[in-house]
Amino acid sequence: MQAEIITIGDELLIGQVVDTNSAFIAKELNGTGIGVHRITSVADTREDILAALEEASRRVALIVITGGLGPTRDDVTKSALAEYAGDCLTLHEPTLRHIEAMMTAKNIAVNPLNVKQAEVPAHAEIIPNSCGTAPGIWFEKNGTVCISMPGVPFEMKTMMRNEIIPRLGQRFTTGVILHRTLLVAGIAESELALRIEQWENGLPSHIRLAYLPSGGMIRLRLSASGDDRDSLLRQVETLVGELPPLLDRRLLSIDDELPEELVGKLLSGKGKTVATAESCTGGNIARLLTSVAGSSAYFKGSVVAYANEVKVHLLNVNPSDIMQYGAVSRRVAERMAQGVRTVMGTDYGIAVSGVAGPGGGTPEKPVGTVWIALADERQTTAKLFHYGENRENNIQRASTSALNMLAEELLA
Amino acid sequence: MQAEIITIGDELLIGQVVDTNSAFIAKELNGTGIGVHRITSVADTREDILAALEEASRRVALIVITGGLGPTRDDVTKSALAEYAGDCLTLHEPTLRHIEAMMTAKNIAVNPLNVKQAEVPAHAEIIPNSCGTAPGIWFEKNGTVCISMPGVPFEMKTMMRNEIIPRLGQRFTTGVILHRTLLVAGIAESELALRIEQWENGLPSHIRLAYLPSGGMIRLRLSASGDDRDSLLRQVETLVGELPPLLDRRLLSIDDELPEELVGKLLSGKGKTVATAESCTGGNIARLLTSVAGSSAYFKGSVVAYANEVKVHLLNVNPSDIMQYGAVSRRVAERMAQGVRTVMGTDYGIAVSGVAGPGGGTPEKPVGTVWIALADERQTTAKLFHYGENRENNIQRASTSALNMLAEELLA
Repeated sequence: MQAEIITIGDELLIGQVVDTNSAFIAKELNGTGIGVHRITSVADTREDILAALEEASRRVALIVITGGLGPTRDDVTKSALAEYAGDCLTLHEPTLRHIEAMMTAKNIAVNPLNVKQAEVPAHAEIIPNSCGTAPGIWFEKNGTVCISMPGVPFEMKTMMRNEIIPRLGQRFTTGVILHRTLLVAGIAESELALRIEQWENGLPSHIRLAYLPSGGMIRLRLSASGDDRDSLLRQVETLVGELPPLLDRRLLSIDDELPEELVGKLLSGKGKTVATAESCTGGNIARLLTSVAGSSAYFKGSVVAYANEVKVHLLNVNPSDIMQYGAVSRRVAERMAQGVRTVMGTDYGIAVSGVAGPGGGTPEKPVGTVWIALADERQTTAKLFHYGENRENNIQRASTSALNMLAEELLA
Repeated sequence: MQAEIITIGDELLIGQVVDTNSAFIAKELNGTGIGVHRITSVADTREDILAALEEASRRVALIVITGGLGPTRDDVTKSALAEYAGDCLTLHEPTLRHIEAMMTAKNIAVNPLNVKQAEVPAHAEIIPNSCGTAPGIWFEKNGTVCISMPGVPFEMKTMMRNEIIPRLGQRFTTGVILHRTLLVAGIAESELALRIEQWENGLPSHIRLAYLPSGGMIRLRLSASGDDRDSLLRQVETLVGELPPLLDRRLLSIDDELPEELVGKLLSGKGKTVATAESCTGGNIARLLTSVAGSSAYFKGSVVAYANEVKVHLLNVNPSDIMQYGAVSRRVAERMAQGVRTVMGTDYGIAVSGVAGPGGGTPEKPVGTVWIALADERQTTAKLFHYGENRENNIQRASTSALNMLAEELLA
């Protein structure tokens, strides 16, 4: 069972907005046993939308569409869908009442454009949008199911989970698709491939392996498809169980986890707490840690010490250390880690100090130079990293490396 | 002049990775006058890659591809490209020497998989990859230029900017595409559309308007295409100049800026500084502010006060205020804003305290309840927001609202 995703919007094609909807939809579809064959992004024009629909319907039995359902005239998805379905647009009373209720609650007057949002293809099934004004639309043509959802991510996500997935389960008999991702750190991709070559050669044809390098780690993904969930699970379990001896301490996690999730799980399991002191990462490590629901159990807080005086006043870094060694140095990173651990009263303190760029580099400490320190009650360790020129990438890699350092410590 | 983008990788189709490359490439192409007609993501299989290439080549004169160039066997892009080009793979000596130098610098032994990375279609032009091991590939077939780049974002970005864009400028004579985005806050999308209806009706056909609601704001985008940059710029300038009287204080910015960029520009212009005290946003506001290069000029730091004791010890919030009003309250948010302003010695302090969810909600303060406070030397103001159920969305919207509050204050 295969589906395609079509995301609609000029903003995608000029690069103003990153299409995050497709990844979410793909994951949800996979979870219910439906594979995604292709993702297509097209402009807000009748011709492009119709062409994409016609091409996709020749390949798959399910098309999931987002975007172009807003009240303004640049949004043409609905009329294109009606044309494709050979249908006309008509006013949907329950949707209009829902829109009126939402607007009234926000003290906004209902206007003709809102009424237009309640127009839908006459013969389509209408999916309620509990978070917004644009309804979902579901119809079939020549055996292909077409589902259209709003492009606003949280409206789409709620509709997908609460309305679409249950309906898909009733409409289609699907197989099982399982993904299992392992985190490997401290080894090059090509070296890893050689180490597990024999194991990879032994994989059955319905289980595929992929290597995904990111932020100094490699995510190793097994994708298995079949009919019986239990036997597929057992098979994957057995294969995963063969890896630890091949990879020993380089294997950080055998569950499908982001570094911040792995760290959270390990901290929770040990009843330990952490705080971060961040210079060049600017709060990104705190943001990652707190993106995990329930993180308040092990994360107490962070001091983003962008200015040197903040390092001194809030983290008790010695001003003379900054003078002597510079803010980007082993000494200052260590002092920051110890300082934040003390002021926040946590078991672990992580600190990052580096040159994110584009400015601030020197011949001895070029852009991309980052010190990361980890303090606990016994000791403080620090590592020096050299990333590249790109600010965004340096912030991201330093954050991942810091979380990995803590994960390795917790796994030791 | 139109292009298509093809991104290759199973990870995109199972939703494990969000395709951020396409947006970057689209923006860069637009900047050089090349429009993007379609973005397609396909799996790491020969058939799907070939089908996508053949379809795209019937529509456009330029195809830009990323992904599937790694050293492991799940990466098949290169052989599919060679097949499509009617070419064979051959060892590219300069690339092999570059790979050897990179591996040696990292103290990793070169292995046969790395040598395979140096194989390229024999008749293609090879584009050096200064940040990684996989080279770029450029060839033409039936008048369509195909460019393949690595999928690792920072490798691709560097190659795109430094190598591809200059070559495209030499190869194609392109027109001009201009985008101008305005930030509007405090008005519903449908209400905005009615307010500027007459103005929108008067837009010439080569200038398109789009409404992009996000995080409590609307980005209003004008996209203009033509041959002469100067006259197009003047035309857009005139149209934009007509908007302020229609929108008065709801128009936050007429430049294409993210809220954090707008805030940065305004703070720099006034020589003012800011610090943040974040509870439920967990460092996300600090991260946004520091994502802007040069932000150290106006951002001193942040206290991420996830635990109440951190609010008390580092931000001098009175414990009895937390007892009496709760951590999510006007009083505590105001005290946090004042506290961080004092301890960091800044002109402005922004504070956020709320219930991001999924846990922690109560009947009086359900998930999505967020207080945001802004303190300066004269006064402290606070606003109450009610977002929704989704943790990620609540964090994002609270961050945007906080930045908007500061922007409005700086614009007042």
